[in-house]
Amino acid sequence: MKYTAVKELFRHTSQYVNQEITVSGWIRSVRASKAFGFIVLNDGTFFENIQIVMDNTLDNFMEVSKLNVGSAIIVKGKFIETPDAKQPFEIQAASVTVEGASSPDYPLQKKRHTFEYLRTISHLRPRTNAFTAVFRVRSLVAQAIHEFFMSRGYVYVHTPILTGSDCEGAGEMFRVSTLDPNNLPKTEEGSIDYKKDFFGKETNLTVSGQLNVETYAMAFRNVYTFGPTFRAENSNTPRHAAEFWMIEPEMAFADIVDDMDVAEAMMKHIIRFVKDNAPEEMAFFNKFVDKGLIARLDNVLNNEFARITYTEAIDILEKSDEKFEFPVKWGIDLQTEHERYLTEKVYKKPVFVINYPKDIKAFYMKMNDDNKTVAAMDLLAPGVGEIIGGSQREDDYDKLVARMDEMGLEKEDYSWYLDTRKYGSVAHAGFGLGFERAIMYVTGMSNIRDVIPFPRTVNNCDI
Amino acid sequence: MKYTAVKELFRHTSQYVNQEITVSGWIRSVRASKAFGFIVLNDGTFFENIQIVMDNTLDNFMEVSKLNVGSAIIVKGKFIETPDAKQPFEIQAASVTVEGASSPDYPLQKKRHTFEYLRTISHLRPRTNAFTAVFRVRSLVAQAIHEFFMSRGYVYVHTPILTGSDCEGAGEMFRVSTLDPNNLPKTEEGSIDYKKDFFGKETNLTVSGQLNVETYAMAFRNVYTFGPTFRAENSNTPRHAAEFWMIEPEMAFADIVDDMDVAEAMMKHIIRFVKDNAPEEMAFFNKFVDKGLIARLDNVLNNEFARITYTEAIDILEKSDEKFEFPVKWGIDLQTEHERYLTEKVYKKPVFVINYPKDIKAFYMKMNDDNKTVAAMDLLAPGVGEIIGGSQREDDYDKLVARMDEMGLEKEDYSWYLDTRKYGSVAHAGFGLGFERAIMYVTGMSNIRDVIPFPRTVNNCDI
Repeated sequence: MKYTAVKELFRHTSQYVNQEITVSGWIRSVRASKAFGFIVLNDGTFFENIQIVMDNTLDNFMEVSKLNVGSAIIVKGKFIETPDAKQPFEIQAASVTVEGASSPDYPLQKKRHTFEYLRTISHLRPRTNAFTAVFRVRSLVAQAIHEFFMSRGYVYVHTPILTGSDCEGAGEMFRVSTLDPNNLPKTEEGSIDYKKDFFGKETNLTVSGQLNVETYAMAFRNVYTFGPTFRAENSNTPRHAAEFWMIEPEMAFADIVDDMDVAEAMMKHIIRFVKDNAPEEMAFFNKFVDKGLIARLDNVLNNEFARITYTEAIDILEKSDEKFEFPVKWGIDLQTEHERYLTEKVYKKPVFVINYPKDIKAFYMKMNDDNKTVAAMDLLAPGVGEIIGGSQREDDYDKLVARMDEMGLEKEDYSWYLDTRKYGSVAHAGFGLGFERAIMYVTGMSNIRDVIPFPRTVNNCDI
Repeated sequence: MKYTAVKELFRHTSQYVNQEITVSGWIRSVRASKAFGFIVLNDGTFFENIQIVMDNTLDNFMEVSKLNVGSAIIVKGKFIETPDAKQPFEIQAASVTVEGASSPDYPLQKKRHTFEYLRTISHLRPRTNAFTAVFRVRSLVAQAIHEFFMSRGYVYVHTPILTGSDCEGAGEMFRVSTLDPNNLPKTEEGSIDYKKDFFGKETNLTVSGQLNVETYAMAFRNVYTFGPTFRAENSNTPRHAAEFWMIEPEMAFADIVDDMDVAEAMMKHIIRFVKDNAPEEMAFFNKFVDKGLIARLDNVLNNEFARITYTEAIDILEKSDEKFEFPVKWGIDLQTEHERYLTEKVYKKPVFVINYPKDIKAFYMKMNDDNKTVAAMDLLAPGVGEIIGGSQREDDYDKLVARMDEMGLEKEDYSWYLDTRKYGSVAHAGFGLGFERAIMYVTGMSNIRDVIPFPRTVNNCDI
């Protein structure tokens, strides 16, 4: 369009020196005397601001001098380098047009606000330094993930959000209905008549697209989902949201080692991509949010992830001198304290733990020859604990059915899923990456509410 | 991984000639005599199949000869060119390993199936030629859209799926709740006590992310959403689904002309990208699904879209000799027959129609100086009618409030939205593209159920 982007000025400075240009954006601050003034402007295209210099020869110098923070203006002027100043360049304004003034009650005055306060104005917080950085990085992480899979020939599959089955049994689900709750239709027996509901049956919001996408892996070989998933869990923690996005790749003709290879390459690609494409934002996080961040990410990039079995992990934990709150014993689910000990104290880098006891894992995971463990795979990362969970899937029809019987699952509900094991079954594996967990990991932000534009948690569905 | 992808063999044939390679995939057909046999294999990476030649020196020649369609195998052998044959090359098998046999009741035997039948086995249909083409193109259209916006510096914003407000008032919504429908909590007055629900209030599934994403355009300038949206409309048509994906870009410091420019460039980018990246699939659609497809798409690529006002459109329609079912008169909403007449008979290319009567458009659209029309923008395309709907937004606080009063909207419900007009309001514009409509447009598929992996429509929420 007709404006020069501030990002362009920073990235290709020399092309614009001494040129007449037009920029537009929102005022971050104004300082003015009677003779001249300085405006710090952000145009939305870039993390950094640009300085505008104006003097009282401007027709509307007084009006502009008194503008509130947040006002929108259009500036024409000369772009000049300022080698002796703090900022590398500035614009000498020939004209400043007020596009939209800002009211004096603008909540984002120059002072620093707490993340807690900014959560109450989620529609305005992307205008702050911290959240402009967070949400640009969020966008870049999404781009990195799509690029990673698309460049490797994966097919992006949109698995459904509305589902008629609670397939994974993973936690509480949200019910979806168009029935009038004040006048629910009843069957002759007196129960609710879901045949009259929109879909003719009970429906919920999805908790995972994995079972659906497995059927697509049997057609396209390598596929992935990237979409919203939901948990109606009443847990008010910094790491849980009711609505979050998840990435679930699934690879055919692949085993648990291939699964780890893909997960490791993907994590490294995300980190490299964000470091390359958002150096200013990453420097900001490293300075103001999490001082060890870049060193920790570089450590991830520069090392092969450790790979151990669950049994080895238990052995290490049992032999350690660490006092754990939760006692360690073969068969337990690893707690965050155990995960962090392994990855922060023992290996000091990300660690894959594979082959977990079957009783603490899902029905679809491949039984190992020991008949005690399944080919599950969790990726633990320093600072956060589990970041990825996955497995090789049980591809043997009879073993899968036996496991379903053992766990009391109704085979009729899964007949379509069992078809994948009946018509050309192949070794296959996949994993789930919580998108917000990944963003927290690369930004150092510690509350999931601060990496989702409009977060949904218990008692919070505003805006 | 350890297998050579069939796509790789087609794209870089010369590198593999006379090499020993290993491929894996699913059998599309087997023909065998006592002495030798031919297998047509699809490995999921590519639309085209590869031919395997084997003879009875293979240990398991008899077993392999009797495999059913759909069986999964791993083939080692020599890759050789076959200049005199129908297929360009084949693999002379040294070994064939059966990874997973297929049961004789496999529903996808070699004969051709109707799309209607294939809808009943949505978990298997991506294994057919038509649906492997549809769902690979679906993935490519998504990639094209992300590339288009990301390469232009747009920030991808995930607007919420769960919403506490029916902001756009666009049709029926799905209710979301965790309350036990058999035991709904009541207030003292006897109405349902939504304070006890998960979010402490009534919540629904989103119908649009536009209002939310506008707040992000005021921070990042150029933004877009790409996520699922929902309509609980009881309409059983080939063009409506209850769950579909939508793309909603929003640009700050932009007017309705910029809006049209972005929409036109985006549509052309999508078409060019799919033609470049899926030539085999597009040739298939052009041959078997819609014979005029490629000519129509080329016509779109090679022409500037027409741009007319609603008033001009009405004038053209009134002067035409065409018999319309719905009478034409200034003030009516254009019907599909009118849209198709304009784009197919008059302009023979896509047409933007702008400046619609305010009474048939949404409250947030910018009032034009005539006080009768708003800066709405619809893109009509030959063969389908409306494919994009958008507008420049009303950026004047007072005018927006007046319009909301006129339409009886509660300002308290929109206070966060009004904030964007209070703190640095700027001219801005955006539009919505139905993702599935775009896929139907580039593939020629005529039923929305056939471009969604697991479609959700009235009485249909299977798998």
